[in-house]
Amino acid sequence: MKNFKAGLFGLGVVGSGVYKALLQNEKYGISIEKIAVKNIDKQRDLELPNGILTTEEDELLENTDLDFIIELINDPEEAFSIVKKAFENGKSVVSANKKMIALYHKEILELREKFDVKFFYEGAVCGSVPILRLLDQHYKSDQLKSIKAIANGTCNFILSKMVSENQDYNSALKDAQELGFAELDPYSDVSGEDTRFKLSIMIYHAFGVFVHPNKIPLQGINFLDEHIKDFAQKHHLKIKLIGEVQEVEGEITAKVEPQLVNDKDDFYTIENEFNGILVDAEFTGEQFVKGKGAGSFPTALAVLSNLIDLKYDLAIAKVSDKEVKTYAKKSEARIYFIAGLHDEYIFNDLEVLNKERNYVIAKSEFHQLEKLKKDNPNLYWVQLSGNFLKETIKQDALV
Amino acid sequence: MKNFKAGLFGLGVVGSGVYKALLQNEKYGISIEKIAVKNIDKQRDLELPNGILTTEEDELLENTDLDFIIELINDPEEAFSIVKKAFENGKSVVSANKKMIALYHKEILELREKFDVKFFYEGAVCGSVPILRLLDQHYKSDQLKSIKAIANGTCNFILSKMVSENQDYNSALKDAQELGFAELDPYSDVSGEDTRFKLSIMIYHAFGVFVHPNKIPLQGINFLDEHIKDFAQKHHLKIKLIGEVQEVEGEITAKVEPQLVNDKDDFYTIENEFNGILVDAEFTGEQFVKGKGAGSFPTALAVLSNLIDLKYDLAIAKVSDKEVKTYAKKSEARIYFIAGLHDEYIFNDLEVLNKERNYVIAKSEFHQLEKLKKDNPNLYWVQLSGNFLKETIKQDALV
Repeated sequence: MKNFKAGLFGLGVVGSGVYKALLQNEKYGISIEKIAVKNIDKQRDLELPNGILTTEEDELLENTDLDFIIELINDPEEAFSIVKKAFENGKSVVSANKKMIALYHKEILELREKFDVKFFYEGAVCGSVPILRLLDQHYKSDQLKSIKAIANGTCNFILSKMVSENQDYNSALKDAQELGFAELDPYSDVSGEDTRFKLSIMIYHAFGVFVHPNKIPLQGINFLDEHIKDFAQKHHLKIKLIGEVQEVEGEITAKVEPQLVNDKDDFYTIENEFNGILVDAEFTGEQFVKGKGAGSFPTALAVLSNLIDLKYDLAIAKVSDKEVKTYAKKSEARIYFIAGLHDEYIFNDLEVLNKERNYVIAKSEFHQLEKLKKDNPNLYWVQLSGNFLKETIKQDALV
Repeated sequence: MKNFKAGLFGLGVVGSGVYKALLQNEKYGISIEKIAVKNIDKQRDLELPNGILTTEEDELLENTDLDFIIELINDPEEAFSIVKKAFENGKSVVSANKKMIALYHKEILELREKFDVKFFYEGAVCGSVPILRLLDQHYKSDQLKSIKAIANGTCNFILSKMVSENQDYNSALKDAQELGFAELDPYSDVSGEDTRFKLSIMIYHAFGVFVHPNKIPLQGINFLDEHIKDFAQKHHLKIKLIGEVQEVEGEITAKVEPQLVNDKDDFYTIENEFNGILVDAEFTGEQFVKGKGAGSFPTALAVLSNLIDLKYDLAIAKVSDKEVKTYAKKSEARIYFIAGLHDEYIFNDLEVLNKERNYVIAKSEFHQLEKLKKDNPNLYWVQLSGNFLKETIKQDALV
């Protein structure tokens, strides 16, 4: 089989991982011939052949020598423009840009059809966890019921520190930043936005429907205070930020929110940069995958696996063959720990199960809580896992 | 895309699952036109069209109307003969016959090449867990280091009953048989043979080398007695039968044996029909997949996913492109709980860490223990998990 030549955009954490991995493994028969970067003179921890770097994107996009493009930059608008031009030049693309894909998913896939090229992006969702491959192939012949995912390592880290080391949110965040687990501007991670991008992409591969991330309701972890920490510690629970999508009576609903899990939950053991995805489907039943969701080499491996797919011209069954579901911004009622409130009367509308001095346990729909939050900005909620509820209700200990 | 027609061999637990699933899902565009069974008049819990059943295998194998063959019978020799004849007739095959594949792996894949057909068998290894797909595709571009797997639900069930309900081996086995978790003749499961078939198949997909199951040393669970049960209960451990393969200095070693795991181990939560596989690879790092390893629909789904692969003419990167490793029947020394002995002097050759009245904790290689067992048939051993050892050594509590 002939050797393939690729052009790489971006030489950050993942880009340099991909470059090193291909260099170390000649057997793949894929070489990176040209790399587009913003700044050629930047100090890099990499030995690079003379002339491989360029700041001119057309040196890659219009280079007829290159078989495909690897897009690994940060900016979603720029990335989208690169992908479009690559398609127009008849080049297939592998990308790991979750934000770009989540924001332009439909347009990109339409362009992919129009220019008859391929576009793979396993690295965009949960790093090394091959969830898109599984949804496209393994679950192609199953009926998906729900997906729940821990898809953000920064939140894992902060939440672990809060519960197991008794830190408050701000000091846990500071630790995360110092150790490189969180960005200087942590908004995208802690607000749940990052998880929402990944969830939006998974929803398409699971249910065939494009759901713009903004349509998915979310509650981040940046409001959590000592009351939830105390409750979690008292009941030996962990707090996890979970994105979930489920089918309810033929329609799809989704949300991102913190949940309290106990040691019966598969998510209990997911820490730091690990991600975990629980898929429930008609025939398969429950299946859980746990793996590194971030990092140079784990994400690079997902990109590499897609390069091999391109090389072998893998024909993935098209998602469009699936029965397409419609998306409804609604949700089923769940049982929540709710805190951060001043006016008690606001709970009159909820089905309260337990009422303590600083919080209530109540059954509610997500959008009801969102509505309450408008007038009570300190309000926050954490969903209680079914496994925890089963045990506490058995012991009559839900306080 | 045209509709595909398949011929099915075997209408047992998995076969009827596949039949029902295809019938319920016309959208797959795959229909079963003919089913070969031993006994046409057997009472079946299925509504079947007149004339679909036959006892003549050539009505399927020589039927030019059929696009492919689904082989789901029990007998490995008969299954091999069916697969060969299907190949000779230019038909691709999907099978879930682990024993047949493990015993004739090399020959079948050579015949597959010779007759230029496809042969998929995801359902043969751990039911719905898509491990072969992941090894062939996701890990294609990674360097595998090790695979550990709980691949047998019968053993899970018996071991759980022994530890958590304090039953002895025989009464736990009896319960398993009454509930349909174990066959009347449980030998293949409890001896570890079944796990060894699956491990042998995975080894090829992971490391490109055919290892006949008989070459993999094994220790089953049918020797375990109250001493190991007491030890497990005392330390809050679970006993799991684990098949493992690892690369040691460029060579592959493998074995099947019971291990003691604690709640830090991913295997701890695997119960009953669930299987769990932990893969460690250079770039990906550790990844864990948990799903139903048996049952009509979970295994049927694995078969279905392969039928869809055939329909879309999936080009899986060939394992033969991998760097092939050699297999060595050796093993690294591990720390074991060893019991069931009468003559104490036999431990003189081992590096004993703790010695109690009824057992010792000692460091040993597997083949050393195998040798000792020849003269001490009651001897058995259970490997101690690294996570457990770390904790007990920290607490100085390894007794």
